[in-house]
Amino acid sequence: MTSRDAQDQGQPPADSTSQDGGAPGDGAGQDGPPRRIVVVGGVAGGMSFAARARRLDRHVRITVLDRGEYVSFSNCGLPYYVDGEIEDSYHLAPRTPETFAQQDIDVRLRHDVVALDPDARTVTARGTSESGTTREETFEYDDVVLSPGGNATIPPIDGLQAGFDAGRVHTLRTVDDSLDLRGHVDSGARTAVVIGGGFIGVEAAEVLARAGLDVALVQRSEHVLPPLEPETAHPVGEELERLGIAVHTGAEATAYRHNGDAPVIVLGGGTGPDGRTELPADVVVVSAGIEPATGPFEAAGIACQDGAILADPHGRTNVPGVWAVGDAVASVDAVTGERRVVALAGPANRAGRAVADAMLGVDARPIPAALGTAVVRAGELTAAMTGANRKALSRASIPAHTVHLHPTPQAGYIPGVEPLHLVVHFGQDGRLLGAQAVGRLGADKRIDVLATALRAGLGADDLVDLDLAYAPHYGSAKDPVNLAGMLGQDVLDGSLRLWYAEDAESVLADSLVVDVRGEDEFAEERLRDSVNIPVDALLERLDELRDRADGGPVRLLCSTGVKSAAAHRILAEAGFDSASLSGGLVTLRAALGPGADRLLA
Amino acid sequence: MTSRDAQDQGQPPADSTSQDGGAPGDGAGQDGPPRRIVVVGGVAGGMSFAARARRLDRHVRITVLDRGEYVSFSNCGLPYYVDGEIEDSYHLAPRTPETFAQQDIDVRLRHDVVALDPDARTVTARGTSESGTTREETFEYDDVVLSPGGNATIPPIDGLQAGFDAGRVHTLRTVDDSLDLRGHVDSGARTAVVIGGGFIGVEAAEVLARAGLDVALVQRSEHVLPPLEPETAHPVGEELERLGIAVHTGAEATAYRHNGDAPVIVLGGGTGPDGRTELPADVVVVSAGIEPATGPFEAAGIACQDGAILADPHGRTNVPGVWAVGDAVASVDAVTGERRVVALAGPANRAGRAVADAMLGVDARPIPAALGTAVVRAGELTAAMTGANRKALSRASIPAHTVHLHPTPQAGYIPGVEPLHLVVHFGQDGRLLGAQAVGRLGADKRIDVLATALRAGLGADDLVDLDLAYAPHYGSAKDPVNLAGMLGQDVLDGSLRLWYAEDAESVLADSLVVDVRGEDEFAEERLRDSVNIPVDALLERLDELRDRADGGPVRLLCSTGVKSAAAHRILAEAGFDSASLSGGLVTLRAALGPGADRLLA
Repeated sequence: MTSRDAQDQGQPPADSTSQDGGAPGDGAGQDGPPRRIVVVGGVAGGMSFAARARRLDRHVRITVLDRGEYVSFSNCGLPYYVDGEIEDSYHLAPRTPETFAQQDIDVRLRHDVVALDPDARTVTARGTSESGTTREETFEYDDVVLSPGGNATIPPIDGLQAGFDAGRVHTLRTVDDSLDLRGHVDSGARTAVVIGGGFIGVEAAEVLARAGLDVALVQRSEHVLPPLEPETAHPVGEELERLGIAVHTGAEATAYRHNGDAPVIVLGGGTGPDGRTELPADVVVVSAGIEPATGPFEAAGIACQDGAILADPHGRTNVPGVWAVGDAVASVDAVTGERRVVALAGPANRAGRAVADAMLGVDARPIPAALGTAVVRAGELTAAMTGANRKALSRASIPAHTVHLHPTPQAGYIPGVEPLHLVVHFGQDGRLLGAQAVGRLGADKRIDVLATALRAGLGADDLVDLDLAYAPHYGSAKDPVNLAGMLGQDVLDGSLRLWYAEDAESVLADSLVVDVRGEDEFAEERLRDSVNIPVDALLERLDELRDRADGGPVRLLCSTGVKSAAAHRILAEAGFDSASLSGGLVTLRAALGPGADRLLA
Repeated sequence: MTSRDAQDQGQPPADSTSQDGGAPGDGAGQDGPPRRIVVVGGVAGGMSFAARARRLDRHVRITVLDRGEYVSFSNCGLPYYVDGEIEDSYHLAPRTPETFAQQDIDVRLRHDVVALDPDARTVTARGTSESGTTREETFEYDDVVLSPGGNATIPPIDGLQAGFDAGRVHTLRTVDDSLDLRGHVDSGARTAVVIGGGFIGVEAAEVLARAGLDVALVQRSEHVLPPLEPETAHPVGEELERLGIAVHTGAEATAYRHNGDAPVIVLGGGTGPDGRTELPADVVVVSAGIEPATGPFEAAGIACQDGAILADPHGRTNVPGVWAVGDAVASVDAVTGERRVVALAGPANRAGRAVADAMLGVDARPIPAALGTAVVRAGELTAAMTGANRKALSRASIPAHTVHLHPTPQAGYIPGVEPLHLVVHFGQDGRLLGAQAVGRLGADKRIDVLATALRAGLGADDLVDLDLAYAPHYGSAKDPVNLAGMLGQDVLDGSLRLWYAEDAESVLADSLVVDVRGEDEFAEERLRDSVNIPVDALLERLDELRDRADGGPVRLLCSTGVKSAAAHRILAEAGFDSASLSGGLVTLRAALGPGADRLLA
């Protein structure tokens, strides 16, 4: 491998918006041969490591091996090249091996690492020249940082491979993927099917629709964006439909075939809103998750779990001199302690930096445990999350109090303002465990505030006290986050008892369900088998209610959960077994999605 | 005073977006006469107290006395009625005494409290009936909550009182003020002068300009928005000018008079951008701060400081049974410990709630110490702040490290994205002390995150670790807040040494100032007496630089502070006395405002 002499390298990173560039070396001598560091994978984690390592030590040799054609590219930007929002593909990967050479970082593209020998301390890469010839090359290391990322998961769908071969089926993991997909779209494709409704799948569906294609999205599970709670995800699905995308949830793509000249995806299971079982598919995008690209490393004895590398809080694997960061590592979840892959750029960057600190620095802080904070734009909606969701809490057997609220993200009198939908989980000690938000405005802000609160170990009381920026266009004197804290306090101190939309069916069977909205609202739409006592009339109709309940549970509801909470206080004081529907009918409709229809009359 | 029977009151608050409404009473009996609570002032602090108190205790009698015509109105919305963004004045004060009567809260409008007798435990109010007759009425209390707010400060300007009397000069503190001002604007006013460039003054200037008036803003101090750092405030001043508002800073309104039929404000001092000394003033808005409306209370022996009531962390004054909240109270600053008035709705709401908890609840938490988090919209810009600014830190003798940065609030490749300007103060132990941001997008979000971090006692290391929501339209994999933390770490660990724009004049006199930008940029505009050595050439020109510096200090700069930080590392390692200009020329121009011109060539 080449060691560039640092003497003539003195340039900061070309990207002047970066505040974290590497420092140039000055070529001063050092005792002994320089430490040799090999980095496998030249995207977020690997390049953050490399830049930080160079900054901490001018003398180490840093070689980056990447199997692709581009270094340090923006995975997250790839979809937005497809519809031309990002016009120039240059912006997807503005940095080149030459840029990094200025920092004395030796980047080797088209170098696919195929073997690691921990005893000899070597990695072997299969290098492909621009002309296409391949040869194996072995690199010695003192330390190696594995940041190989993942490979797109390809579901076993009949005929799909032929589609890949024909260039009609795409993934969206690399710059070339994005170029290929845009080329295909620009060549006159009219229909598209996206298989997989995770974050990338949703973004892909949206950009294809913006590009003018007739798009269908196929998602196995009950709603798009599986990490989101149903009540956060369903509004996104509806927004995609508003954009003209046919969203098929609970559905599976079983085959890719041609009906004459017309390529189609054949659906098994849920047939989606339009009842079709075959979806025209000039373009297919497969976005069904990733599998850690760790084959050679697991084979070399690096401890893995479900293919993901296990590393300690400083990124050390079980093998001396071997470190790991990024999408191929099983991170420890900050809330649940669960080990899982967090395939996000921010955590990968932080891990790369922290590994450099641990390897070369002093007083290295551990890699921050992942909160899994994430955000996605879908049409005019933003959906965002941080921390644990209900499923993760349940898997980890962490009891939680969940609250739902629908505050406005600006003062209520700002014309056109629409509510933000917030769901927040608190532990039994009041600590924040996780939160999600969806809305047209301000969802990302509240989730970032809650992510900060979560990282700091704050609880409901603290959320009430937060002093957040208020002017009518930015929030309310009681910000949605403050209100979430207040609601959490009420639940924690027992003054509010909640029931949840997902239990609606059994609640309707077992309880007297009382809708405390006005008569007009009740007449318009209501839960089947619910009765109406407007909250204003509740006190005077207590005896009637007592007769009807006959000692059994009374379950209250209203539109948003505010009036029914007030009603609950009346009934609780009067000795009823009472509870209020968290988030009201607004949450119920969102949580049950299309399933709400059979409960509503 | 009237005690409404709770028996027939069972309605939750009309505003269904509120998650913090009062609970209805059920009229159950109680031993002894009910506790009598009088609240003086029916806006944010007072009404938050009243709603919470009612919720905590169905039996207490709550009487609210307010001198105005409206209860629980939105101070912060008042400007936006003037230009019609809020079309209907109903939205400024949707709640009435009748609304609160449903919660068994007795609101008396047009009741101006003129005396407090702590021994007799009474307050005396001068009540004015709708027909205009006045009579004094005395209210007995067991506890009284003083939330009188403030009166608009009226600067001693010749002729101004006549203008008030003629209805041509306005303040903007009450709903009626807003109605009057809109009426005046709608009656064909063509010119306006706003006296005072604080938050309300800036908003008033903007809405008057949006309403089509020719507007001038007169501000005594060197920049608008005095709580902001100059580098945050100057861009706001420029944005106001872009909206067509003539911003006269360092200027004083000395007289209001009529030149024939034409009313004008006469300027003394700084004559502003257009050189005028008389500003046409069909409309004048005076927004020169507030004075606590505490006369009767101070006279009754309630301890005050500069007219603001002193209260303990639970809102207790020095007199038993007398509590105080809101704009008339000297709060303790969370960062500096300084006592000052924080005239903001959010803190007033929180204080009202906390006082109710302390008076009626158990385990009451103290009123959260104020961070002074605030935000203002000006044209397309948002400026926001939290915690201490440089002046407050200096007054409190708290040493701080200040960093400036200009990251993009979205991924750099999103079309049209413009940088956010962030200034962050860290203590010598690394703890966050304060932050400000200005930009078109995302300033409020980053300040809310930093306000949360400040409240939680986080420091630079923690900011680096924050896991914030990233997708290209919402941030970067390294969010601006993460980058601020990294820059803070560099300064704290000594790897980055900074110099500041406000010292530019003395630095230019005493140091070799080296601009490390490219030659073209340097040729276009530069600091007078600076020399140019592009960072790429620095290593090879070290000897030349050593000769020129001759053992003296070298002060580096570039456009944003990124390249000069890299250059600093080279020079520091080579033994120079070197430092990098914090935030670069972008910050220097913003910090010095028009004053930058004489330093630039």
